[in-house]
Amino acid sequence: MENKKIELIRLLSQTEGKPISGEQIGRKLEISRTMVWKYIQSLQSQGYSIISSPGKGYILNSVPDSLLPELVQAGLTTDILGTDIRHFMELESTNDYAKTIARDAHEGTVVVAEAQKKGRGRKGFDWVSPQGGVWISIILKPSIVPANASRLTLVGGLAVVDSLKSIGLNPSLKWPNDVLVNGKKICGILTEMEAEIDRVEYIVLGLGINLNFNTDTLPEEIRDGSTTISDELGTYVDRLDFVRSLLYNLEQYYIHFKTQPFEELMERWIDSSDTIGRNVRIVTPSKMVDGRAIGITLSGGLLLQKHDGSTEEIMSGRCIYI
Amino acid sequence: MENKKIELIRLLSQTEGKPISGEQIGRKLEISRTMVWKYIQSLQSQGYSIISSPGKGYILNSVPDSLLPELVQAGLTTDILGTDIRHFMELESTNDYAKTIARDAHEGTVVVAEAQKKGRGRKGFDWVSPQGGVWISIILKPSIVPANASRLTLVGGLAVVDSLKSIGLNPSLKWPNDVLVNGKKICGILTEMEAEIDRVEYIVLGLGINLNFNTDTLPEEIRDGSTTISDELGTYVDRLDFVRSLLYNLEQYYIHFKTQPFEELMERWIDSSDTIGRNVRIVTPSKMVDGRAIGITLSGGLLLQKHDGSTEEIMSGRCIYI
Repeated sequence: MENKKIELIRLLSQTEGKPISGEQIGRKLEISRTMVWKYIQSLQSQGYSIISSPGKGYILNSVPDSLLPELVQAGLTTDILGTDIRHFMELESTNDYAKTIARDAHEGTVVVAEAQKKGRGRKGFDWVSPQGGVWISIILKPSIVPANASRLTLVGGLAVVDSLKSIGLNPSLKWPNDVLVNGKKICGILTEMEAEIDRVEYIVLGLGINLNFNTDTLPEEIRDGSTTISDELGTYVDRLDFVRSLLYNLEQYYIHFKTQPFEELMERWIDSSDTIGRNVRIVTPSKMVDGRAIGITLSGGLLLQKHDGSTEEIMSGRCIYI
Repeated sequence: MENKKIELIRLLSQTEGKPISGEQIGRKLEISRTMVWKYIQSLQSQGYSIISSPGKGYILNSVPDSLLPELVQAGLTTDILGTDIRHFMELESTNDYAKTIARDAHEGTVVVAEAQKKGRGRKGFDWVSPQGGVWISIILKPSIVPANASRLTLVGGLAVVDSLKSIGLNPSLKWPNDVLVNGKKICGILTEMEAEIDRVEYIVLGLGINLNFNTDTLPEEIRDGSTTISDELGTYVDRLDFVRSLLYNLEQYYIHFKTQPFEELMERWIDSSDTIGRNVRIVTPSKMVDGRAIGITLSGGLLLQKHDGSTEEIMSGRCIYI
């Protein structure tokens, strides 16, 4: 059922404005004309604008502005990520929902919401998630130990950077889990896991990307430090294209992560980062450390050269450029 | 309501076979005689045998053979563990259930089942869990990094060892997660967690203890390597007492774990272990290592001295004595 619908959308998208008849559709999808009509009706009820001209056929006028599974999948070129997409108009948090289904879900299952009521960043901080953004969680099941889970935050960052570059932005990675454009936060990454002592059962990789909304709509206290794709570009971008690009890039990096030594991705992360080389202050629950960021370790920690010349690996914390 | 019931059971248990009148009970619990009668009825319907002799009062004849919260709690001397107990006649797995409630549960919440249909050991191996055993999961929320979660497996082992010693057994700890008596498995420990990269959100510490059942009832393939408390002692033991003792000992070690450096518990684990000093073969998904077990590391790994004289830390795996 869902597959035929996806095929139908693909077919309607490829007519370049010319009508396609119910008979043609039926032949290509190998379904009856009655079924074609039922699918068309179903799509219309989901917000697709499909014009039907008697005697000529159907024209797809516009698709709904939401990340519906069949829309994302219609142009998706991945093998693993996004073959199962769970879409919601609103969720408390896509990561929280993903965790409730992760155990029984296939690797690569995607949870996406048009808005989040309680989007979360690291350590339970809020992540404001209005309509127009991309709030998405991906369920991954790599055979890794819990200590290496932080690598997936880096992998997620690399994918976001590539997708942002492909629409003309110049992003940089800020340790540990942010993507910046012009020094302002455009994406946050929240990696969570369920694990035994020595074996990750699943990872939920949450990506929150400020896409088609105005920074002015954000609460005052985070407005100055945040930006959105539409603010940076001065125009709205196609959210579907962006999500497809993101899932594709993420899959490429994830396959690399699973099959190759991690050093190469670590180097690539460093190349895309504006943290390395800077003087930073790291604030953790137990301490505050100042120093020069000189590298990333294989476990995703930040290597600091302190003012007394000694080096220290910081596994996590809030990073302030000073 | 539940507290009054627990007080009532405590009161009935302390009369040493003499009847206690409804009036006396009402006065002590500060409830009406009608309420006393309702509580007595409610207890009787749960399997408590309470004899009522007209004009004299109530005598508690026997309690049901199940780990009902009010029974466990009536004699419990802990501050954190077991203040909230969720009891089931049967669960698929107490760890699985605990994980569904852990996020919203208080630290120290206990899940206990009279039997498990799909009890699990490490890496998804079955753990046969018939009636008569103690199948229990404890929800803990320590502020630790995921890499230190394995320490709680050691903490759990220490508590089980103390409780087994207190009923006259001579247990030993086998790395990584078993407790043996006379060289046979009497308890397995399964520590699972939900975590961000650098912060454990919760730990579910699962303990499966072979208590009041006959080893003969176990499947043939595990029978030789397993034993039960009742088989070792030649008699059934009080399950309620055992669970109370276990929760008490676990709380003591857990407080130590949270407030003191870990070295002392590590030393104590080594003292109670029969793994250290032995020649072992460790089998992991990726390799097999032979050597002499010479210690435990602060992250719960086993320190092996290999035949070429070099040492290696093994984080996990199946351990075979050779």
